[in-house]
Amino acid sequence: MQVSQGVEWAMHICTLLSEAPDGTPVPRRTLAEAYALPEPYLAKYLKRLVAAGVLTSTSGPRGGYRLAKPADQTTGLAVVEAVEGTGPTFTCRELRRHGTVAATREECREKCAVHTMMDAADEAWRARLAETTIADIRRHRPDTLRARAAETLGW
Amino acid sequence: MQVSQGVEWAMHICTLLSEAPDGTPVPRRTLAEAYALPEPYLAKYLKRLVAAGVLTSTSGPRGGYRLAKPADQTTGLAVVEAVEGTGPTFTCRELRRHGTVAATREECREKCAVHTMMDAADEAWRARLAETTIADIRRHRPDTLRARAAETLGW
Repeated sequence: MQVSQGVEWAMHICTLLSEAPDGTPVPRRTLAEAYALPEPYLAKYLKRLVAAGVLTSTSGPRGGYRLAKPADQTTGLAVVEAVEGTGPTFTCRELRRHGTVAATREECREKCAVHTMMDAADEAWRARLAETTIADIRRHRPDTLRARAAETLGW
Repeated sequence: MQVSQGVEWAMHICTLLSEAPDGTPVPRRTLAEAYALPEPYLAKYLKRLVAAGVLTSTSGPRGGYRLAKPADQTTGLAVVEAVEGTGPTFTCRELRRHGTVAATREECREKCAVHTMMDAADEAWRARLAETTIADIRRHRPDTLRARAAETLGW
């Protein structure tokens, strides 16, 4: 089980955007260059982040992307789910209802215990991601790095 | 992020094998028919379960598969990792070291906070899977179902 590369991209992009003064919008090209990312591929993830309400985008010559909410209200879970979707990691196909040892409908009134375990693990994963915010991630960025990023981006 | 269909197959197969009297080996074809699974595809997962030490296999006319350890010592995590591998769900490509806002080597002495969060979520997921054993799953199978399975499989 693996999350896509887009999760790393999205987390760093959101952290960088959280450092923009007064939520100044940052153009897509600038974001792509900031982390040496292929712009058309990044565009796909930015679209998902906007659709999920993590980022907002504005068009025009001074347009770009910014965080939709304050950094301390933007969780790792929101970013990961924007990229990966909110669907469960496990899809129960009710295997117990098939084959020579199939359970009857009557015997399946309770949710399958395998499904229950997988859903509980999924919830534990999401709960941990919800504990960390972009503000927490940002706090780990050295001051020298933040200063250099601000200078590079003309902030 | 999704786990493969093989996880559901493997969990049900291991639960069924835990009901075999005295760990009687069950042939691959019988297991495939038990849940109406394509045998060549199931073979791939059985191989992984044996390689991971969850199942043992014996050859010969009375050969087949059985649980390598008692059901209460066979965790959901062991089964899921046998199918999905033990590799982390998140691969950090050190994105912070790239692009116009790249961090210096000096600024990267601490593990990336994104990586830390993703690893912590991964651990929470695995910890939850480790809490449930095949014996726990088995306890949820109705007696009528277990009796019918035993009769069908000649136990």
